[in-house]
Amino acid sequence: MNVSPEALWDRYRGLTYAELPDDVKTVAGHCIRDWFACVLAGVDEPLAAILREEFADRVGPCTLVGTGLHSHATVAALINGATSHALDFDDTSMSMGGHPTAPVFPAALALAEERGASGAELITALVVGIEIESLLGSAIGSKHYAKGWHVTSTMGVFGAAAAASFLLRLNTEQFGHAMGLAASQAGGLKANFGTMTKPFHAGHAAERGLLSARLAARGFTANPDAFSGNQGLVEAAGVGTLDQARLAATDGRWLISDTLFKYHAACYLTHAAIESCLQLHTAVDPVDLSTATVTVHPSLLDICAIPRPSTGLEAKFSLTGTTAMAILGFDTASPATFVDHIVQQPTLQEMIRKVVVETDSALRSTQTVVELEDKSQNAFRAEFDSGVPSTDLEEQGRKLAAKFAAIAAPALGDDASRFTAGLEALPDLPDVRQLH
Amino acid sequence: MNVSPEALWDRYRGLTYAELPDDVKTVAGHCIRDWFACVLAGVDEPLAAILREEFADRVGPCTLVGTGLHSHATVAALINGATSHALDFDDTSMSMGGHPTAPVFPAALALAEERGASGAELITALVVGIEIESLLGSAIGSKHYAKGWHVTSTMGVFGAAAAASFLLRLNTEQFGHAMGLAASQAGGLKANFGTMTKPFHAGHAAERGLLSARLAARGFTANPDAFSGNQGLVEAAGVGTLDQARLAATDGRWLISDTLFKYHAACYLTHAAIESCLQLHTAVDPVDLSTATVTVHPSLLDICAIPRPSTGLEAKFSLTGTTAMAILGFDTASPATFVDHIVQQPTLQEMIRKVVVETDSALRSTQTVVELEDKSQNAFRAEFDSGVPSTDLEEQGRKLAAKFAAIAAPALGDDASRFTAGLEALPDLPDVRQLH
Repeated sequence: MNVSPEALWDRYRGLTYAELPDDVKTVAGHCIRDWFACVLAGVDEPLAAILREEFADRVGPCTLVGTGLHSHATVAALINGATSHALDFDDTSMSMGGHPTAPVFPAALALAEERGASGAELITALVVGIEIESLLGSAIGSKHYAKGWHVTSTMGVFGAAAAASFLLRLNTEQFGHAMGLAASQAGGLKANFGTMTKPFHAGHAAERGLLSARLAARGFTANPDAFSGNQGLVEAAGVGTLDQARLAATDGRWLISDTLFKYHAACYLTHAAIESCLQLHTAVDPVDLSTATVTVHPSLLDICAIPRPSTGLEAKFSLTGTTAMAILGFDTASPATFVDHIVQQPTLQEMIRKVVVETDSALRSTQTVVELEDKSQNAFRAEFDSGVPSTDLEEQGRKLAAKFAAIAAPALGDDASRFTAGLEALPDLPDVRQLH
Repeated sequence: MNVSPEALWDRYRGLTYAELPDDVKTVAGHCIRDWFACVLAGVDEPLAAILREEFADRVGPCTLVGTGLHSHATVAALINGATSHALDFDDTSMSMGGHPTAPVFPAALALAEERGASGAELITALVVGIEIESLLGSAIGSKHYAKGWHVTSTMGVFGAAAAASFLLRLNTEQFGHAMGLAASQAGGLKANFGTMTKPFHAGHAAERGLLSARLAARGFTANPDAFSGNQGLVEAAGVGTLDQARLAATDGRWLISDTLFKYHAACYLTHAAIESCLQLHTAVDPVDLSTATVTVHPSLLDICAIPRPSTGLEAKFSLTGTTAMAILGFDTASPATFVDHIVQQPTLQEMIRKVVVETDSALRSTQTVVELEDKSQNAFRAEFDSGVPSTDLEEQGRKLAAKFAAIAAPALGDDASRFTAGLEALPDLPDVRQLH
């Protein structure tokens, strides 16, 4: 599997929307709807407001989604990208090892608006960007993330550069320069998780990827092998060689099909427990529940196992908290549920004390088993793996529509149904500027 | 030696121009004059023209040096930064491990212009930026560069952030956020050496460092320990621990005093050979020369030992070529000397064939011995180490004035003497906007 710019561009530069398989078209549509949901829900976050303030004087042709404001393409890519990752509620991908849409789509959208590209071109650009960042994310291997790099940004910058290169119709030589420039702007550290800089990473990648393609289109030069060549990113920030096993696993597949969506406004590794509880919601009446046992991989104890959460933020990183919420039928899909006064409700706190977390190192990190026992000692068991992409794309579409309605529609108000209808019609839109 | 943002800001945030030692003031003035020389000489380089074209619509209050154009502060930092490194003729520093002024001064200048800061504040901001990027460059250790990172950019972004934080008068908490943001934007790979992306690195660092400080001033958050903390840059891009030996060597010193200047428009590692020849220029008449033996560290054979250069670019990376030029009295200070038709002159090519390169691993990489032998077998020997900062700052000033006159004055035309007088008066200038 060759990941040189030449090989990649040979495969992707001529792609058309018409030739995408139906399931790829469907998943790409899901990525886009979910991306808009996340931006619209994140628009009032302080980090988004600060970025808009900093660039307030850069008025241009590209939409700052959900604000009525417009800016230059690179600025719009930065602000929309950071905003879309503000709530950490956007899609993820195991083959990329990060959030695939947040760095790519803002770059593609801004450029498509500037150039008046069609909806089909915009969607295809997103697919090209996600395929390429996922291939490179597979290629650089998991040690890259383990060392401290935030893959959403470090690989996302290549996805953004690729999507923009596609819309700019760069030739193979120019695309090589764009990828080389992107390699020198790859950055983003996990040390900044838990701060505004984590969402900033997605915007940074979108902006710098877009800039890389724009400069390459004007004749700027870089080393096309700056990803995997001598003194390139794989040497500097990986283990020096490509992860051939992970790369082989990508062969012949559309990697956008690996996209996972978040339906709960909490740490992704709590989702399998929530989904297991939802499977059991008719089995035990909460008032009859005696204990709930949640079994997870031991690595989760360091990530999302705050035993007695008392704030909204703590509850997001608490298996006991999210499991108790799911048992009680709380709306875990809504960020508004994860606020202090709800988490501190006595009913919830009482349920939290009934939840026991156990570990089993035979499980995957995304896999959880929940066992509920009622006061008559009847036991009910369910399990879920949140790391497996859904094969029921119709159901996935319904769940994402519900998520959009829950988190994004309030920001749109009366425009919500017009906006979602516009997204449905995106593949046939002759000019994406008609979307807004 | 503590390099936490708290310790750094405790030391530098309150610095004033008045309390700088005289030699620090002098060297800072040299850095600034040399920086302007390099920008003015680089203004017509294609990479600078492409960047100006890309951002042509971003009109703002900050000078694009040498062009008559003005742009937003971050855009000016990017363009001036890249332009100042375009010819690779700007200053270097062994303690930083990169080019110190190119990433820092453009950020400070743009912000000082936007805010109407005084000349003394601008100079002090440069000193603060260079001290901090040099401390961090020492701290992360030489393995960082060896892995493939271009220190000018990866440490320069901290220097730019520090200089901008100084001018914005950030408090310690805000400065910590600025440094954390800068850490997540550190990038730049040696794989891109030899392309336009190498100079771009300096501009990228200037722009992103400046942006980091601006966002921190508005309340943006990051992890102050993203340089040396858990999952931070030293883990991700260094060896995981600080280089305490290199750090100890910085103790109690002003690191700006380590600045080395380039007086020859060729690879820095050819400079000691040129300087040795200049010492011997009265010893042997070139027509009587039999052989010239240049002895260097063996590592130079991979860097600047093209034996028979036939183009301007090849001559820049050729010990035989640059030595032959120096013996013949060619103006190695001028980039205009390193062009194909001059390199191909028969007299020069004949002299090149008389130069022999030998190696001695006891020498440092910056140290060279030259032995000239005339046709009567009289031998003359000189040596030079280009890695040792000059202690004769008056002579350094004269040499830099000559360099400015050679490479920058042509771009200024009639304005040259007014411009250099303005730079001389910079410490007393109440508002840097009066400089242009």
